[in-house]
Amino acid sequence: MRVLNAADLQQVLDFPGVINVVADAYREKATGEGTIWPMIYHEFISDQADMDIRSGYLKSQGVYGMKLLSWFAGNDAKQLPELNGTVNLYDDATGLPKGIVNAAALTGYRTGAAGAVATKALANPNATKLLLVGSGSQAAYQVMAELTVLPKLSEVTIVNPVNSVEAKNVAMKLVAQLTSQFLPAIDQNSADYQRLADQLAQLKITASEDLKTATQQAEVIVTATPSTSAMIQADWVRPGTHINTMGADMAGKQEVDEQLFNTAKVFVDDRAQAASVGEAQTAVKAGIVSEEQLPEIGELLAKTTDNQWDPQTVTLFDSTGIALQDIAAANLALDKAAQLNLGQTINL
Amino acid sequence: MRVLNAADLQQVLDFPGVINVVADAYREKATGEGTIWPMIYHEFISDQADMDIRSGYLKSQGVYGMKLLSWFAGNDAKQLPELNGTVNLYDDATGLPKGIVNAAALTGYRTGAAGAVATKALANPNATKLLLVGSGSQAAYQVMAELTVLPKLSEVTIVNPVNSVEAKNVAMKLVAQLTSQFLPAIDQNSADYQRLADQLAQLKITASEDLKTATQQAEVIVTATPSTSAMIQADWVRPGTHINTMGADMAGKQEVDEQLFNTAKVFVDDRAQAASVGEAQTAVKAGIVSEEQLPEIGELLAKTTDNQWDPQTVTLFDSTGIALQDIAAANLALDKAAQLNLGQTINL
Repeated sequence: MRVLNAADLQQVLDFPGVINVVADAYREKATGEGTIWPMIYHEFISDQADMDIRSGYLKSQGVYGMKLLSWFAGNDAKQLPELNGTVNLYDDATGLPKGIVNAAALTGYRTGAAGAVATKALANPNATKLLLVGSGSQAAYQVMAELTVLPKLSEVTIVNPVNSVEAKNVAMKLVAQLTSQFLPAIDQNSADYQRLADQLAQLKITASEDLKTATQQAEVIVTATPSTSAMIQADWVRPGTHINTMGADMAGKQEVDEQLFNTAKVFVDDRAQAASVGEAQTAVKAGIVSEEQLPEIGELLAKTTDNQWDPQTVTLFDSTGIALQDIAAANLALDKAAQLNLGQTINL
Repeated sequence: MRVLNAADLQQVLDFPGVINVVADAYREKATGEGTIWPMIYHEFISDQADMDIRSGYLKSQGVYGMKLLSWFAGNDAKQLPELNGTVNLYDDATGLPKGIVNAAALTGYRTGAAGAVATKALANPNATKLLLVGSGSQAAYQVMAELTVLPKLSEVTIVNPVNSVEAKNVAMKLVAQLTSQFLPAIDQNSADYQRLADQLAQLKITASEDLKTATQQAEVIVTATPSTSAMIQADWVRPGTHINTMGADMAGKQEVDEQLFNTAKVFVDDRAQAASVGEAQTAVKAGIVSEEQLPEIGELLAKTTDNQWDPQTVTLFDSTGIALQDIAAANLALDKAAQLNLGQTINL
């Protein structure tokens, strides 16, 4: 059985590859080839420490398994990462364990890829301007994933409504971080590699404190915060804008005005989860949409992979996170690591 | 993070120790210090391959986690074990992974210990005669655990109603197996060690095909089979007999006559699980007992650790298996392995 830590994942996971397998996982959920099992959630200390277990079965890849991811806010003061956990995969022909992967690092990749899958399907494929709301651990993954599917993307604005200093620091260092963290894993003979290297070399990343103006100028918006109230108002968003709301994954979370569910074309990753703990929860409570009216992105991908952008329409993807993303990304990592003979091996 | 395989577990787990921590886990479930989360179950192939995920939080030990255990009947033909899986533990102060343990081997220990906890609380403490129904992977663990809590036990009869040849083979080899597999892990300076070494040296283990007579002669009965209909009839069981039904853990399973739920004093490990998938399910369906009427063994242990044996009463413990047993036993193994610097260590 192979074990991959964060450094191993950085060597084996390339965003073009992760985006492909996450798109496949969404589609297989829609076609019934992929199954997710009930999520288990436990809060140890209110608003300070919790964990969830997401599990499922990805038949096309012959693997099933689970991710246990914990969040302990107090770890920061102990010089420990706030997010910790493991993804365990098992072979569906024998039940034998296939491998264990660092869940925190994997979550970065698969969540970045989730947004990029929706952007590729729904956003202006020639978009040049991205707004990222939030400057936490997801920032680098989200920007690199969006770059991967938006070949014309040349300007990124970062707004952190609660910590503008962090936004400035992240903006200053992000190009260098993306170049060193994500470029080496991409096949250097691929078209993606040369294009992304050039794109990163030209990329302008700036911080802003004016969320309204940044929203009005953006063609693609990614929100990746733990916010519990709307930061982006519906009337700030121009027609043709695509929004990925990545933050909401618990009751009480919200990043954008629920009125956007009235005006935007909305997709979710999992209908039930979005309605209960996703960005959609506020719109569902307000009676703007019902759970049944929330189409899943995988249902669209099962029908077509053509880009759906319409310059007159706002699109919104509400990502809450499903086990099939984790399983697909972990399986890609384990298969690549096996080819390269990377990672630690253990005898269980 | 430490990883323990089956050979490591054999070195670090001693039955006196596992029985103690499983008793603690049951009691902590009753007092609310231990929590179990909903079980996840998936069948890959009907009656051929399935898996379940059991998870929970054992506050007294500062650990939470989960066990994923899979059963693939077809593995036998592939020279692979039928049961495979992992137990993952995490530290409740930081969320950091504490260790990974081979789930199949651990399940043997914790299930053996489960029966022994009930025997210690409910059976004649001077019982000399044990009947074991079943001769599969649980046989050795069940007999060793019962020996640990029954210092006068000197005769074991094994009956396998569907495979009497296997029962004979197991009976012939079992004393030697118990002595080599379980004795070395016990502290050689402890009273238990010397007593168990002497007891094993004197122990008579025989196979029988006459379940009725064996039942009538037994003082303690353990059933550990995948049976789906009653093997032991209620009127075969003498007053004062204690029965541990270990086999039923799925809808449709049954090992003993449901009328025993009318006449015996019954305890279960988890009320809801016992009523839905345990030995109690048939009695509940027949209207003999209701879920609410099933006391948990932990509730008894929270009140008293005094032996409850009454020569006039049949007692029955219905074990379905709860995550806290796995977590308690895995934690004991990991702590002992840390002291002895045993097992593999990985950097996640």
